[in-house]
Amino acid sequence: MYELYYWSGIQGRGEFVRLVLEDIGQPYVDIGRDKGDDAVAKALDGVLAPYAFAPPVLRAGDLVVAQTALITRWLGEHHGLAPHDERGRLAAATIALTIADLTAEAHDTHHPITVEEAYEKQKASARERARAFRQHRIPKFLGYLERILEKTGNYLVGTVSYADLAAFQVVEGLTYAFPHTMAKQEIPKLRALRDRIAQRPRITAYLTSDRRLTFNESGIFRHYPELEAA
Amino acid sequence: MYELYYWSGIQGRGEFVRLVLEDIGQPYVDIGRDKGDDAVAKALDGVLAPYAFAPPVLRAGDLVVAQTALITRWLGEHHGLAPHDERGRLAAATIALTIADLTAEAHDTHHPITVEEAYEKQKASARERARAFRQHRIPKFLGYLERILEKTGNYLVGTVSYADLAAFQVVEGLTYAFPHTMAKQEIPKLRALRDRIAQRPRITAYLTSDRRLTFNESGIFRHYPELEAA
Repeated sequence: MYELYYWSGIQGRGEFVRLVLEDIGQPYVDIGRDKGDDAVAKALDGVLAPYAFAPPVLRAGDLVVAQTALITRWLGEHHGLAPHDERGRLAAATIALTIADLTAEAHDTHHPITVEEAYEKQKASARERARAFRQHRIPKFLGYLERILEKTGNYLVGTVSYADLAAFQVVEGLTYAFPHTMAKQEIPKLRALRDRIAQRPRITAYLTSDRRLTFNESGIFRHYPELEAA
Repeated sequence: MYELYYWSGIQGRGEFVRLVLEDIGQPYVDIGRDKGDDAVAKALDGVLAPYAFAPPVLRAGDLVVAQTALITRWLGEHHGLAPHDERGRLAAATIALTIADLTAEAHDTHHPITVEEAYEKQKASARERARAFRQHRIPKFLGYLERILEKTGNYLVGTVSYADLAAFQVVEGLTYAFPHTMAKQEIPKLRALRDRIAQRPRITAYLTSDRRLTFNESGIFRHYPELEAA
């Protein structure tokens, strides 16, 4: 039985892991939601120490894996949601890490100065950073994914993998946070991939369950209308 | 023969890869330095496409690996600079990714708003972000590494690995960028690790060669005195 350690009230980075756990159909305990955030914080100094810096963290028996892209890779490779050959495995890992970078940049649009203070204390800088993110970074990252799909077809690395689930989630998150910007992106193949993932039976079941939290303004992908104003 | 694709004038993220290549004693071509940055840019749209988003990228015959922490892991695991067991491998990978996060945050101290504009255009925000970075993030990340070493001894994951080389490099970079802040950190075990890595014969030879560039204000770790002023 896998244990996922992540904060209870948000999708956040943990959602990339939840999607993989749901898709591979493995039972897991979502520790934050089951036992509260205190249990997560306590575990970081206890059973998850010393290698886990921050949630999400996955515990699989004696193994402790942290860092979103590493957790999803490990799960994907152990449960048939990753390529089998080394080239494909490295490609999927590269994509997942690049999506993790995009996610970190999405986070910094509302926290460009410090995670120690609330968004409201850094709104002026957030507005500037969000503008650059919308104008330059979203097109650059999503164009990268689109160009891969132009070469590979239905999935980012030939056969479906955890990297496709990550692409689904980042499109969902960015669409929540920056709907007008996202509406303008010319990414037909990436949108088709998003739909293809949403239609996977276990993903559909998950997305319509109460296990799928809604996006909110405590998570990584936040919708602040002022961050999308020209 | 390995090919490293990275910009020619800076240590940057490429340096984490160079250190591993030097330590494992494998011959490599440093494409940017040998053939110029144009060759790197061209390769991104050519031989490195479609999975590499940005340098550094390693080419090993038919394989293309991007993302610093993934490249160093791959090299380390193929050349005896990584643990042999799965627990150890996951621990080293987790640490390397966490150091990559620290490196990204170090970058954003001088580019808190956008990579499209020079530091000089975002100095006010940079000052704020650097203050938070010095006060909160440096102690948090380096404290994490120090606590690991308190448990593991001479190396972060029992035996020497690419994660130790990454720790060496981030300590060097932060010490260049924020010397006063770094002088105040209580990290005796991490400093001892830094020294231990510097004394590895191939690393010593590299650090004293003209292949080792000096830190400068085009790289990731930049020294701007005003970013360390109270």
